[in-house]
Amino acid sequence: MLHWCSRMEADSQISSKKYAADISSIKEAQKCISSYVHKTLVLSSETLNSFCGRMLYFKCECFQKGGAFKFRGACNAIFSLDDTQAGKGVVTHSSGNHAAALALAAKIRGIPAYVVVPKNAPKCKVENVKRYGGQIIWSEASMQSREEITTKVLQETGGVMIHSYNDRRIISGQGTISLELLEQVPQIDTIVVPVSGGGLISGVAIAAKSINPSIRILAAEPKGANDAAQSKAAGEIVKLPETKTIADGLRAFLGELTWPVVRDLVDDIIVVEDNEIIEAMRHCYEILKVAVEPSGAIGLAAVLSDSFRNNPAWKDCKHIGIIVSGGNVDLGLLWDSLNKAEP
Amino acid sequence: MLHWCSRMEADSQISSKKYAADISSIKEAQKCISSYVHKTLVLSSETLNSFCGRMLYFKCECFQKGGAFKFRGACNAIFSLDDTQAGKGVVTHSSGNHAAALALAAKIRGIPAYVVVPKNAPKCKVENVKRYGGQIIWSEASMQSREEITTKVLQETGGVMIHSYNDRRIISGQGTISLELLEQVPQIDTIVVPVSGGGLISGVAIAAKSINPSIRILAAEPKGANDAAQSKAAGEIVKLPETKTIADGLRAFLGELTWPVVRDLVDDIIVVEDNEIIEAMRHCYEILKVAVEPSGAIGLAAVLSDSFRNNPAWKDCKHIGIIVSGGNVDLGLLWDSLNKAEP
Repeated sequence: MLHWCSRMEADSQISSKKYAADISSIKEAQKCISSYVHKTLVLSSETLNSFCGRMLYFKCECFQKGGAFKFRGACNAIFSLDDTQAGKGVVTHSSGNHAAALALAAKIRGIPAYVVVPKNAPKCKVENVKRYGGQIIWSEASMQSREEITTKVLQETGGVMIHSYNDRRIISGQGTISLELLEQVPQIDTIVVPVSGGGLISGVAIAAKSINPSIRILAAEPKGANDAAQSKAAGEIVKLPETKTIADGLRAFLGELTWPVVRDLVDDIIVVEDNEIIEAMRHCYEILKVAVEPSGAIGLAAVLSDSFRNNPAWKDCKHIGIIVSGGNVDLGLLWDSLNKAEP
Repeated sequence: MLHWCSRMEADSQISSKKYAADISSIKEAQKCISSYVHKTLVLSSETLNSFCGRMLYFKCECFQKGGAFKFRGACNAIFSLDDTQAGKGVVTHSSGNHAAALALAAKIRGIPAYVVVPKNAPKCKVENVKRYGGQIIWSEASMQSREEITTKVLQETGGVMIHSYNDRRIISGQGTISLELLEQVPQIDTIVVPVSGGGLISGVAIAAKSINPSIRILAAEPKGANDAAQSKAAGEIVKLPETKTIADGLRAFLGELTWPVVRDLVDDIIVVEDNEIIEAMRHCYEILKVAVEPSGAIGLAAVLSDSFRNNPAWKDCKHIGIIVSGGNVDLGLLWDSLNKAEP
């Protein structure tokens, strides 16, 4: 069971004055979304535990509605709108799981979702948007094109913009994962979280450290899109000229709402190579029997990496929660990547 | 919750006089194995429900220890041996999940497992036997070679033979799936079960029909190994000269202990083509996010098949339990099969 520490919350440095979300907004989000989201399974595997000499607890957000954690934030954003706001619909730009999640949440509320999708988005994720009734507006792949077209759609529809991570409602929704996980596995001392735009890790870190400040939050990031690691090193947001990684869900950069959380509450960032992600995906499929996307496997890749295993700072990480962020993958692309990684 | 009907059990025609197992032996098995086996998850998907217009409940035995339901029967067989019997170890021949399950259960009890494995067994399943400490003795692929070498190993070791399905202890262990499933989803009116040697479906049928005689038990069988369908039609055990199916777990034939159960308690056998199995596998990976082996997907293939959907006898099957029997698959072989099935 969770032991809420009200004194600590009152004294906490983790306040909404400092960050976009806090434990109160995350608990509010949990109330708001609990009848819509799945309480996802936590899996463990003795084989994987033996591989890394720690106890691993996989929080399987791939089993969340829409196939990824994004549905939590999207639900919180949409169901916290008043009827007048909601009536004109919601607008976002996203190449992936946020788009599908927003479309699904909008469908449940019975309002339109306008989704600006770059032409290079993974097919399976675009299919999910369509299946959930989202209205797709295509853009070029560049962020400039995505943003210009989004502005136009906002003007034409009068809808409410729901950014995929740089949004208090989204961060609060994603934070509900920590509330669940620490109730399901109270002994957790470390949580490993994929980092991209930072919405997930911000919510998870704020909630977990509010409940237990000694919990370590480790980000997992692909080397080809390591803006968070570079930002931590530089002490300010770093944006990269380009990204290159198999993990299509991890190519975004930190935003002004998520950067302060990553700066202050994330203990370290573990950077992994794409071949480590692919090997971890293989373990997820073959040992855990869970179909994950590359972003969903990066947490396992991080705890299996030499940079984590050989770091004395993490030798006391014994009970590690791993956020398996999603499972939306084109099986064809998956195989191509596995095949290329054969020795 | 389960409502045990003691009157019905006393009157039941489903007795151990008639069949190798009964509800008592299955409840005994549950007590025997409960501290070793996982109570497996039941998953559902609104998307898959909408595909077939029924409520589907996937009993995910791929998450069982060893990656398949076989661990239930193996545990029951091994932990019901007395110390003298157990001391000399256990012997079996198996190309797949039974071998690994027996090795794992033997490892837990601390006794040797001698496993005769044909040279054409799937690599991932052989790896599982090795990982669990089973002692592998290779045979040729033919059943004659497997049986001859098994007889020799039994003579040399003095171990106890544990057949993979034609064994009361095995059938009783597999039957515990029904006890769990009907407790997890009491409204189930139909259970769809892969059939091969018949150990799984015998246990599931005996337990389910003892609890609720109106539950329909439907077998799912690949066309290239449809000995059970042919046996039902002929009214006696039919063995095939050869089998040809992607579902490597479903190539065995009914035995003398499982045939009477299939004859009397299985309401129908739904025969599906390999391409239907492959399509169902794709749905399991892409929609359910569960990594299954071909045998594990055949239940979904059956409920999506025209022969099931168009059969008026099954129009009242509204709440369907599907046994996802296992998830041990070589990803390379999987992709080859998916790739061949591309339009």
